Amino acid sequence: MGSDLRETLSRLELDGERLLVDLDRLGAIGADPRGGVSRVAYSVADVEGRAWVIDRMAELGMQVRRDEALNVMGRYPGREPALKPIALGSHTDTVPNGGRYDGALGVVAALACVRALHSARTELRHPVEVIDFAAEEATLGASTLGSLAMTGRLQRGGLASLAWDGRPAVAHIRDAGLDPLSLGRAVRPRRCLAAYLELHIEQGSVLEAEGVPIGVVEGIVGIRRYVATFVGQANHAGTTSMAGRRDALVMAAHFVLAVREVAVTAAIVGTVGVLRLEPGASNVIPGRVELEAEIRGLDEETLDHVEGELSGLARRLGGELKRTSAKAPARSDARLMEAVEAACRGLDLVHRRTASGAGHDAMVIGEFIPSAMIFVPSRGGISHSSDEFTEPGHCVDGGRVLLRALLELDELLDPAASLPRLVGGVPGEAGGGG
Amino acid sequence: MGSDLRETLSRLELDGERLLVDLDRLGAIGADPRGGVSRVAYSVADVEGRAWVIDRMAELGMQVRRDEALNVMGRYPGREPALKPIALGSHTDTVPNGGRYDGALGVVAALACVRALHSARTELRHPVEVIDFAAEEATLGASTLGSLAMTGRLQRGGLASLAWDGRPAVAHIRDAGLDPLSLGRAVRPRRCLAAYLELHIEQGSVLEAEGVPIGVVEGIVGIRRYVATFVGQANHAGTTSMAGRRDALVMAAHFVLAVREVAVTAAIVGTVGVLRLEPGASNVIPGRVELEAEIRGLDEETLDHVEGELSGLARRLGGELKRTSAKAPARSDARLMEAVEAACRGLDLVHRRTASGAGHDAMVIGEFIPSAMIFVPSRGGISHSSDEFTEPGHCVDGGRVLLRALLELDELLDPAASLPRLVGGVPGEAGGGG
Repeated sequence: MGSDLRETLSRLELDGERLLVDLDRLGAIGADPRGGVSRVAYSVADVEGRAWVIDRMAELGMQVRRDEALNVMGRYPGREPALKPIALGSHTDTVPNGGRYDGALGVVAALACVRALHSARTELRHPVEVIDFAAEEATLGASTLGSLAMTGRLQRGGLASLAWDGRPAVAHIRDAGLDPLSLGRAVRPRRCLAAYLELHIEQGSVLEAEGVPIGVVEGIVGIRRYVATFVGQANHAGTTSMAGRRDALVMAAHFVLAVREVAVTAAIVGTVGVLRLEPGASNVIPGRVELEAEIRGLDEETLDHVEGELSGLARRLGGELKRTSAKAPARSDARLMEAVEAACRGLDLVHRRTASGAGHDAMVIGEFIPSAMIFVPSRGGISHSSDEFTEPGHCVDGGRVLLRALLELDELLDPAASLPRLVGGVPGEAGGGG
Repeated sequence: MGSDLRETLSRLELDGERLLVDLDRLGAIGADPRGGVSRVAYSVADVEGRAWVIDRMAELGMQVRRDEALNVMGRYPGREPALKPIALGSHTDTVPNGGRYDGALGVVAALACVRALHSARTELRHPVEVIDFAAEEATLGASTLGSLAMTGRLQRGGLASLAWDGRPAVAHIRDAGLDPLSLGRAVRPRRCLAAYLELHIEQGSVLEAEGVPIGVVEGIVGIRRYVATFVGQANHAGTTSMAGRRDALVMAAHFVLAVREVAVTAAIVGTVGVLRLEPGASNVIPGRVELEAEIRGLDEETLDHVEGELSGLARRLGGELKRTSAKAPARSDARLMEAVEAACRGLDLVHRRTASGAGHDAMVIGEFIPSAMIFVPSRGGISHSSDEFTEPGHCVDGGRVLLRALLELDELLDPAASLPRLVGGVPGEAGGGG
């Protein structure tokens, strides 16, 4: 630990009570009469939520900007203005009738970190940027719209899709006063940030099951989706001998169990979520079964291997496996994970490395900027539901780890000894994010 | 072999060519433009088919009767009028767009047997009755309506069901000029026949697979139907660890494979023909699966045992098995099976004992009257389809076995030595079936 960090730490403390009050206040915006919260991307409630975030940023003396996609960014200055900012953030949009923690916790915790600096009237070496990403949830068809726009990878075709309510995605975008054709202008230089760190609820039950308060996210899994088809022979369930059958459902049942077994062996997750059967009468042997399967894992080679096994098995069973989509895994930056672990050690918090099974903006940003995530436990692993809950103590612990990791990174990145690298023109927007 | 039988045999021969011509002629009635034949119960084509049968009976000097349910019966006299008739038959109604052999073969073969007697100007000891049962196919909701009516077991509630075309079953009955409320008057005394023997296509592929031309039906399987329900926990397919899952489809897959395994071990057939899954999205772990299963076997104890195993397994998997219906197995009469086997030996035809996986009138009649069935091979095991086919040679062989078994039974049943049993009043209609 450097002397600067020791010195800063002695003066800084995260206001956990205020963090929880902010979480409550943000949760009241778009509160759903059915329970939970509905701040669906680009809705009135979503825009209101972002206005609330902007107000908090302004209170903290941050330089605030919202871009063409409704990403909200606030910058708190640093002592060495030539350094790129370290960014903290998440998103404040939700699924319809969603929870009060998914996304919101990461944003209010990032604000709490800046508040700790602001209250101590101190600045770090790096500027600190808080980002509230737009349209993270897949309510408009695709997910992570805001971070895709920011990194210049928005697919024009994605906006042609229908939103959660059956209306065109572009109609929702226009409702928020935005120009669908201008979303792409939200792009920023690819290496405009020194790092990106996101606190989020786990949305799984690994941490809760193991009683571990902090997850250090090693990466966000890649997702591959498949359709498997098994063709047998529809026939009379009474007159066809067991030996003479080609029962497509029996083939499919072997496959369903194999997906589970192969996934367990490879330490990834695998799911068959859809199964369609023909002809579907109790006295007729199923002649055709089509099922939808997916596998998720951190390691492309493992996914390749599992895909190969399942494909071979489908063939041996007389069926066929077709890949319908693939999203590559995104690994967290090693130095950022180490900074988070150092923070946990400094705070005496038990932690474990874990993978994120769901997609996040950190996966999108992470392709160009060193990124990592911090998870806190979700009760029962439930999310996207009004039952979503994370204990207040865990929320605050997550915020404390985020602040401490920020301080670690501020020392670790762009060390003072390497000043020559920083002298002169730095590519990107460093120092000009207002 | 008795001297009477030897004597009769020397003069009798089944006209195979005429049998095939009759099969063609009957197949032309209700021929479906899409292929196959549609003589759905109580339709114009069905009534036409029965009129054709009545004409054939009349040609052979038989006493003809049709009852309130449209069962058609013809009686050829015997030398000992006090004996009850030996009945041969099947049905001439079909499923919509059905085949030309299912039912029809048994009726034209029964006519061919009487024709052999008639051509030789001879009579057996017993009268011979040919029965063309009404509404054997389940086109009106329930199956074997005619034999149920004849044995006094017609369920009034059964007629409340909808027919294959969505119209009420009673509307079809009225279309044929029948009174739905009078079907029950088709009842006959329960032991009015000495025996009932039915030739039918196998509708399975055991005989074809083994190259055996004649099946001696040991019995018609009992059928038990079930609904199995598995309740797990719907959850995120990415964030829920494999260890933390309660995947209802995985439970159901174990059950599907167990149904097959348990059935194979018990030498019966077992099928899962319907599977419904909730919520049914590729990225959500299935939370609930409901499936429909059935087992069929000749032996009640075996069915009890299998039911117990499947019920226990469903419970262990966290599910539940509910029986929704049960139809008891019907065993063929041992003497009749022996007569059929003796006929096969006499004709030098390879044969094997086999079970019928489908229901037949012989199962209904068999509860009161000694009954058995003879099977001939179905190409590919296909039936209820325009692709239904049985080789002409197999059709004729079936007819020859039917005739020879009739002659065996005529000697075997009510032996002349036991005349005292026959002297005096014989209960039932013996001698008065006109």
